[in-house]
Amino acid sequence: MPAPGASRRFIGVDLGGTQLRAALVNEAGSVVRAQRVLTDRAGGPEAVVAQIEALVAEMRDDATQAIGIGIPGAFDAASGVVLGLPALPGWAGLALAARITASSGLACVLENDATAAAIGEWRAGAGRGCDHFVYVTISTGIGAGIVVDGRLLRGARGQAGEIGHCRIADASDPCSCGRIGCWEAVASGTALGRRAARVAAAHPEGTLARLAHGVPVRAAHVGTAARIGDAGALALLAEEAVWLGYGLVNIQHIYAPERIVMGGGVSQLLDLMADGIAAVVRERLLPGFPHVPIVAASLGDDSGMVGAALRASEL
Amino acid sequence: MPAPGASRRFIGVDLGGTQLRAALVNEAGSVVRAQRVLTDRAGGPEAVVAQIEALVAEMRDDATQAIGIGIPGAFDAASGVVLGLPALPGWAGLALAARITASSGLACVLENDATAAAIGEWRAGAGRGCDHFVYVTISTGIGAGIVVDGRLLRGARGQAGEIGHCRIADASDPCSCGRIGCWEAVASGTALGRRAARVAAAHPEGTLARLAHGVPVRAAHVGTAARIGDAGALALLAEEAVWLGYGLVNIQHIYAPERIVMGGGVSQLLDLMADGIAAVVRERLLPGFPHVPIVAASLGDDSGMVGAALRASEL
Repeated sequence: MPAPGASRRFIGVDLGGTQLRAALVNEAGSVVRAQRVLTDRAGGPEAVVAQIEALVAEMRDDATQAIGIGIPGAFDAASGVVLGLPALPGWAGLALAARITASSGLACVLENDATAAAIGEWRAGAGRGCDHFVYVTISTGIGAGIVVDGRLLRGARGQAGEIGHCRIADASDPCSCGRIGCWEAVASGTALGRRAARVAAAHPEGTLARLAHGVPVRAAHVGTAARIGDAGALALLAEEAVWLGYGLVNIQHIYAPERIVMGGGVSQLLDLMADGIAAVVRERLLPGFPHVPIVAASLGDDSGMVGAALRASEL
Repeated sequence: MPAPGASRRFIGVDLGGTQLRAALVNEAGSVVRAQRVLTDRAGGPEAVVAQIEALVAEMRDDATQAIGIGIPGAFDAASGVVLGLPALPGWAGLALAARITASSGLACVLENDATAAAIGEWRAGAGRGCDHFVYVTISTGIGAGIVVDGRLLRGARGQAGEIGHCRIADASDPCSCGRIGCWEAVASGTALGRRAARVAAAHPEGTLARLAHGVPVRAAHVGTAARIGDAGALALLAEEAVWLGYGLVNIQHIYAPERIVMGGGVSQLLDLMADGIAAVVRERLLPGFPHVPIVAASLGDDSGMVGAALRASEL
């Protein structure tokens, strides 16, 4: 135990399908130190639990009080048992919180990854000071964490906020969930990449095809091409801005935030799409609703682990 | 003042563009007595304020503590000033709560009409006992009142819950808000009536045209025709069920309620659409989300005034 009055610290873990991140975080939400590794997907849950245990051992110091883990899927909050992670097979039924507590001797709490990122931005990032705030991540998929009336919105079984799988369009490519017309199916980084791949296939000598040179075209290539003025890439971002705008207006009608903070890879292109999003907001936002700021996450890739640590600070 | 221990009572007023309702309600949410009149739209705000004052005088008894008024539009909660009522011109800036307090000597609070109805159903109707609950009214428009984590969801300026003006489709007739693709534009009673009018115009000897005989075809005519087995009306309700289902699934993804309670005129046809709605829920609800009950409001047209009275009981 630290001496009375000493700053308490917490470990935040962000478990992703690709990367596993951990940080030691102080009560103000500042990162004391951090580390990341590739998630050992091939090794399965046991290998990844061992990775988490190693990161925890690496991060902890004498002032460390508890551990929070942001996970990309469903879990039982009371028991700390994972119910299922779409991106990581084989985790259903794993008592993750109890395992980490057993090996570390520290209290451990699970949190939804988008909710963890929302906590991070709310407490220590671009959402600071808001009573009503939505964090939305536009990445492979679309996730959200919501603060309304000064509290995290959870809903039954903690399932509120699945805005990415709301129907927003009549037609789309199939969504990751298998359905048609979800916001995620038309506005995620995956959707943008899919549209970009079509453009690249149609113009094999074009900027997008040359930037990707053989690897699948992704949203990041669109950003690079747009920043060097490629007309095709700018048109793709104009279309992406419309789809993002539709969903961001829905979010304003649904949750009435004072501010929307965007994370995920596509948020790095927010400056290129701001005018297009603003045009949709002007077109579709109901009279009486103010035009709220839509800003990029200020903690960047750290939002999730900082938020997971701050969640643990409430234990 | 009533004797200590006597039951306290409250007056709830439901101000609508067509009807003005008031009731004396006890603390359990039971209606002691009620009255309704046609809203004097032609007389303007002053005439309607006089109607409210007359109803309050009529309803009140010695145990009456306070008055709640559900209003169909925007207001400033702290000051009790109306900001604007789409269905009733000329109300912007009216200090309604202060006016009613001045004439009655009773505290008065304004509440959004859909929120008031949600309070009524939550405390004394079909939403009783839920920590997570959505009331949605499908009528001329679509409104909603939301309870999440045991509390009313309000959002910045109390504007959360405008689910009716979320984009849900690419194409539609123009919405009441002037935009295209809102849920209200495809699923409200107005939208159903508009589709029914087209069917009636195409089949002037058909059941719908004969039921309406000269007056504009409305959603209620579709219900009557469907209950006598008219195939055209049943097809219209099958289409309406799909549009309702899309929005009801969105509500589940957004707010994660344990139960959805439907009010408004179209809710009287819920039994005829239950199978169609359930099919959409099976098709579109994400795995891991339970199929929650979707039931008709149990207080019927009283939800709003009962809820307004119960809101006043919190003063």
